Formats: sequence, structure tokens, C-alpha cells
Amino acid sequence: MRLAHTWLPADTPDNEFNIQIISAHDSLLVTNNQQKIYDAVSSWWCKPLGHGHELIKNSIYEQLDNFEHHIPANAWNAVIEDLSTKLVNIFTQMDKTLYASDGSSAIEMAMKLSYESRVLQNQPKRSKFIALSGAYHGETIFTLGVCGIDSYKKNFAGLLTDNIFIENIPYVTGRNDVLWHDCNFDENYWDNYFGEVSDLVTALIFEPIVQGAAGMKIISKDFLAKLVIVARRHDIHIIADEIMVGLGRLGVLSVCKDIIGFEPDAVCFAKNLTAGSIPMSTVVVNKSISNIYRLHKKAFHHSHTHSCNTLAAKVANNYLDYLYKSDILDNVLLAEKKLSEMVINLQAKFSFILNVRAIGSIAAMELDYNTVDVNTIFKLAVKNGIYLRNIGNILYIMPPIYNLLDEISKIAVYLDNVLSKLKITY
Amino acid sequence: MRLAHTWLPADTPDNEFNIQIISAHDSLLVTNNQQKIYDAVSSWWCKPLGHGHELIKNSIYEQLDNFEHHIPANAWNAVIEDLSTKLVNIFTQMDKTLYASDGSSAIEMAMKLSYESRVLQNQPKRSKFIALSGAYHGETIFTLGVCGIDSYKKNFAGLLTDNIFIENIPYVTGRNDVLWHDCNFDENYWDNYFGEVSDLVTALIFEPIVQGAAGMKIISKDFLAKLVIVARRHDIHIIADEIMVGLGRLGVLSVCKDIIGFEPDAVCFAKNLTAGSIPMSTVVVNKSISNIYRLHKKAFHHSHTHSCNTLAAKVANNYLDYLYKSDILDNVLLAEKKLSEMVINLQAKFSFILNVRAIGSIAAMELDYNTVDVNTIFKLAVKNGIYLRNIGNILYIMPPIYNLLDEISKIAVYLDNVLSKLKITY
Repeated sequence: MRLAHTWLPADTPDNEFNIQIISAHDSLLVTNNQQKIYDAVSSWWCKPLGHGHELIKNSIYEQLDNFEHHIPANAWNAVIEDLSTKLVNIFTQMDKTLYASDGSSAIEMAMKLSYESRVLQNQPKRSKFIALSGAYHGETIFTLGVCGIDSYKKNFAGLLTDNIFIENIPYVTGRNDVLWHDCNFDENYWDNYFGEVSDLVTALIFEPIVQGAAGMKIISKDFLAKLVIVARRHDIHIIADEIMVGLGRLGVLSVCKDIIGFEPDAVCFAKNLTAGSIPMSTVVVNKSISNIYRLHKKAFHHSHTHSCNTLAAKVANNYLDYLYKSDILDNVLLAEKKLSEMVINLQAKFSFILNVRAIGSIAAMELDYNTVDVNTIFKLAVKNGIYLRNIGNILYIMPPIYNLLDEISKIAVYLDNVLSKLKITY
Repeated sequence: MRLAHTWLPADTPDNEFNIQIISAHDSLLVTNNQQKIYDAVSSWWCKPLGHGHELIKNSIYEQLDNFEHHIPANAWNAVIEDLSTKLVNIFTQMDKTLYASDGSSAIEMAMKLSYESRVLQNQPKRSKFIALSGAYHGETIFTLGVCGIDSYKKNFAGLLTDNIFIENIPYVTGRNDVLWHDCNFDENYWDNYFGEVSDLVTALIFEPIVQGAAGMKIISKDFLAKLVIVARRHDIHIIADEIMVGLGRLGVLSVCKDIIGFEPDAVCFAKNLTAGSIPMSTVVVNKSISNIYRLHKKAFHHSHTHSCNTLAAKVANNYLDYLYKSDILDNVLLAEKKLSEMVINLQAKFSFILNVRAIGSIAAMELDYNTVDVNTIFKLAVKNGIYLRNIGNILYIMPPIYNLLDEISKIAVYLDNVLSKLKITY
């Protein structure tokens, strides 16, 4: 229905194609018609434990008994320092943790930290960032400046900073793809590339392995691993945007460390951090950045009101404990194989599926624009009991991971159902 | 103490001047030494109901029984539409409400909406904003571009968009100041001013009445009221940043509407919106903006994961109901007189207080840099049981408002105590 006063995100002011949610539990959204809809995108990729998980409720209940939030300037509490310690301890070389409330702001902070550390070292000209074509790092204007997807930024071109984009990324279908292990990386080319721009560049920023908004594109691990090594040779910081993939989505805590095999200068987490309950984001930085601020006795200014929100921190603490103590991460790795088989089977059945890919708890199918009307997917999916949000001609799933292994066969039925009913235009 | 892994906001990596909070209730923070500290800044200006208020707890308990958050893309619930309706109904001419999680992002959205509406009308050159010297609208790079305080932005100068700043703002001491009612506004001057730049400008942005980060400077109501009229004559949007002042701080819901007497094209609320419990911010827009998107059937893209977070929306709904049903807003207006008297009395007693000002539940004293060591204020205040955060030589208070009328005499004693012990250097 047309909402009188809420302008829903990524939408026109009065779009009537929407569903009214009256409750939600586990992987299900319940509508005002009592229809149960499978939340196959984890509510914008943020709910690894689904809806209404006891861990979330109990964390918030417990913290509410004490306090919800206090000013974090010159003040702290054990909950936030515990969380910082857990985040730093995911890595071996990280130093300090800073907080904000959304992914864009965490990326802004990481980019500002990288750049200001150059300014403190009398290198103010190192103001550019190198980003990847297909990248998405948020929708504030500064983060749109490192967005590699034209549709998000074209109307704001007049406001964006001037950055450098890497084209021709070697994408893969998964970990078994030959390019995953060896992408024919031209080290001389990249050495020259970074060498030529390093005087003007402060950092290389990318989404480790999966570019979400680009359509769940999977980048060759070999490419990123080698790119990092060469960039570092030219004293270029590495900013890793693990907002979508970090803390569980790919079956590991940090995709940089646990899959690619390096530790960045700054890494951002958000969505999974609080299991999609209360807004919170974070930047974990290496001493390569914090030591510059120490040396210059410089405060870093980015003063979010709710930086360190304690309700959020409490949930995050308990979520991280759960990742360590349960077998949930191992199950994501087991699920990857089943998810991959699922989309391969669907491709075999439906000729309009041009290709498929899967990694961790993410699977995607590229549909043929010429034969399938992608605009009907959302309505058709909802009608068939599943919330699916295509990105152009990419149909993807990214379900809650807490029970994934058991649910894949259920998801396969949903997808088969929707794909069977898709309007074919050939 | 030096925190191993948390880098506190607006601070150096390892600052040891901090307090450990173990609980908080009402207006009090409780430290690990069981010391009770009066939260005289409402935890960065966001806690009108103090800590642990039943309204906050009960709202969250109630919503947790149902669900905490779901994807807001093509999906909504009654809680968020209720909140949007309440926010729109503060005004008479507003249309739609959009959501984010922090103040900076709400401002970014308002600025992007204003600019993209120009792009949609084939006026892409109208990319500049007019802001006020002393302005603070957040610390993302785009919002720093409209910051009128040099210390926040000087290290990021190379990244900022080029905007226009109004200097020589007529500041006042409060509503009784003669300039409050009549600032000798030179209409011809401002008409020429806006006329000359209007081809390049999309919006005028300001903090209605109080510039917080500048040191609680109070702007002449007459100046802002007349500036808006002249700017509009040149088709310049008005963006009002009510993040600090709106929803209670000055004893009214909207400072634009209820004090200055106009309705902006976009107004941002945040801090008070959820009574400082869960991060949430909002932009309420006029049809002057939304109708452009309707006309062009254009979606607005700024897709925060937690846009419309339902836990936050539930608290906001109940907080707004409380503002309507209780006498809390009237009490702020009554408190204003007492707060003003309090700082006038302190000025009479301490010769190093150069001048004072007060409005709503905000009072500020300008201290003499030459005679007072402002760097000792935080430590001294904490020692004396009050959390005070000076802005340079401005000492201000902005306490929780729910019990303000009763607490002013208590606050006066705290302040007298701290000021009496301030290190005088003459």
C-alpha cells in the first residue's frame, strides 16, 4: 500500500509494492495477512541469527537492567573494552577499535584516519584512494567517491572526490575456480601502477572477496592477496570493508585474515556485528595508523553520539562469543558446498540462468535479461513465500546462517518455485 | 586508565584521563569507585529522560517480544509509519520521513535530496550549500564541507566540497536580548547576496537558534527568520539541523516551527529522537523535495541497513507521545528563566566569567582564557561529582530535561563548587 508518511529506502516516495510486517521470528517475516515469508536476504545481509534470537533478546534485557548508553568521551565501560579486545584479537597485528553506528560512517572514519595520518606526516597530497570497479562502500558522499557502480553515484558526480579505479577484476565462481588460486597476476604491471600514483594515494580500499551491491561478485583470492603485497611495497594503506562478509557470512571471522591471509591497516565491520539488532559499526586499526596519532599526540575527531552504544556492544560481545563457542562457522563452510550444488542444479534446470556462483552462505545466479523479466521477481517471490531482492539480473540468496545446513533444501524448493513461475519473454 | 584496545572518540589513542562507568540511572553516572557523577551534558546532548528511564526500557521490552528489526526495502510496519506520522504532524506542510542511524547521515541525506532534486530539474550546477560560520553538521567529509569551525576540518581541507559561509552572525544572550527580536537585518544586502549565488546554490543549512559545537552560541531569531524569507525568494532550499535542539531541548518539538516560525524543506532530528537509547536519525521533507522525485518517478538511494530500526522507532514513538502528554516541554520553558538567573548569578560571583547565555535547557558561560586553565575543568568537575565538557573556554550545561525544574538548584551548587576550585592563573 501507499504509505502516507514513510519514504522507504532505495525507493520512490510513494511506492505501493511493499509488504507490512507484523512480526518476525527465526528466518521468517510474518505479514499482516499472516503470510510467513522466508527472509532469504537476512534483512539486508545483517541477521546471521535470524529474527528474535534468544542471544539478542537476553543481551539487551541484561544490559537494560544496568544502562543503555553513556557518553563515550573520556568515559568507558567494561562491555565496550571487552568488545574491542575481542575484535582486536581476531587478528594478530591490530591495535585499536573505534565505533560508529553504520557502515558508511565506519568507512568514512577509516578513510579519514588513513588520510589524516598522511597530513600529520606532511604528505597532504596523498588524498586519493584506489578502489575497485564494482565496489560499494556506503552512500555518504565521501564513500560514494570510492563506489565503483555508476548507478549509485552518477547524480552526485559534481560532489565526489577524485579517486582511482581498478578495472578488469578477475571474478570467479567460487573457491574451486582455477582463477581463485592463480589469476595470472602481472606483478610488474601492478608494481608500476602503484609506483606511478603512490605520491597521490593514501589507501587501497576493497570488499574482501565478495562485492555485494555489484551483484555478489566473487573476486579471485589470488588477485587480492597479491594486490595487497604490491600496494604495501609502495606504502599504500589497505582498508578492508568487511561490513557484509566479516564476522560469519563466509564462515570465518575476518575474510582478510582467515581467507586471503593478510591483516589490513584498517578493517570495518558492521551488519553482522550486532547480528542485525541495534545499529553499530566499527573500525579496527593497525599501529601503522594509530602510532602516527600517538607520535603527534593528535586526537582523532569523528564524534558520533552513539559511538560505543552499550546495548549494541553487549549484543556484539555475546554474538562474537557465540561464533567462537558454537559450530556455526564450521557449518557455513559445510553449507557452501551444498549451496553451490543447489545453484548448479538450478542452472541445469532453467536455461535462462546464464551462470552461478557461491561462497560461504552467499549464492548468486545471473539471469538472462533477454528472456526473463527481472522486475517481477520481488512480487512473485513474496507470493511464493520468500523475500528475494534481485540486483538487476542477479538473483542471490544470503539467508541467516544459524541453521543454514538444515535449511538449504527448503531454500532450494522456494527458489525452484519462483524460477518456474518467472515470466519468460522469449 | 589507558585502555588497551578502545580508541575513545575525540581523543588520542591512549588518553588516560577517563572514567569507568559501571552503571547509570536518572541523571547520574556511577563509576567503578562507586562515585556518582551528575551527567550535566546529557551524555553528548542526547538523553532528555536521563539514564534507565522506564519509558525506554518498556518500549524496548515490548518491541523485543515481537521483533527487533527487519529490512525496510519494500517492507514496513505500523511502528515506523506511526513514527513518521507523528514527525510529519509536528508540522503543517511536511510530507515524508526518511531514516538513518546517526546525525551525520541524516544531514548527508538532506543535502543529497536537495542536490539530486536540482539534478533531476537539469540544474546540476546548483551544487553548493550556504552554511553559517560556527556551524557543525557532523563529521563525515560531506558534512564537514558545511562545517563553520576550522579545527574540525582543517586537516581534511583537501577533501571538502567548496561551499559558502555566512560570517558575522548576530549572536544573543537569550530571548530577552534586543537583537533576538530585531537584529537590524539588511534585507537589500541579503537579497543581493542570495541573488548573486543562487545559480550555484541548492540550499541554506543551519542549526536553528543554537550552534552547539561552536560553544552553545545563540543566534538571533530575527536574523534566521528573515534570512529564510530572503533565501526562499531565490528558490534556495532550507535545511534545518535540529539534531541537538529539536524534540525537547528548547522546550518545543521543532525549533524552526515553534520558535522561528517557519517550516524548512528538510529538517533533521537525531539525538533526542530515541531519548539517547538506540541510534536513529531522521530527515522530514517538504513536498518541495518529494514532489520532484514523484514527478521523475525517481528512487532516492541512501540505503542504511538499519534505516527504520524498529527497536529505535518504538522508543521514539513513546518518547514523542510523552512530549505531547506530559508537561515536560512547559517545564523546560519555565526552567529557562531559572537557568538564565543561575548563570547570571555565577557571573556576578566569578570575575573570570566574561559573559553568559541561556535558552531552553542550555546554559553557557564564556571563561577568560587569560585567567583560567580550561584544561583542568574535566578532571576537576569529575572530582566534584559532575561531568562537564568545556568547548575551549566555553563551559556549558545541557542536563536531562525530565526533572530539570527541580534540579537547577542542585546544578548551581555543582557549578559553584567547580568554579570556586578552578585554577586561576593571574
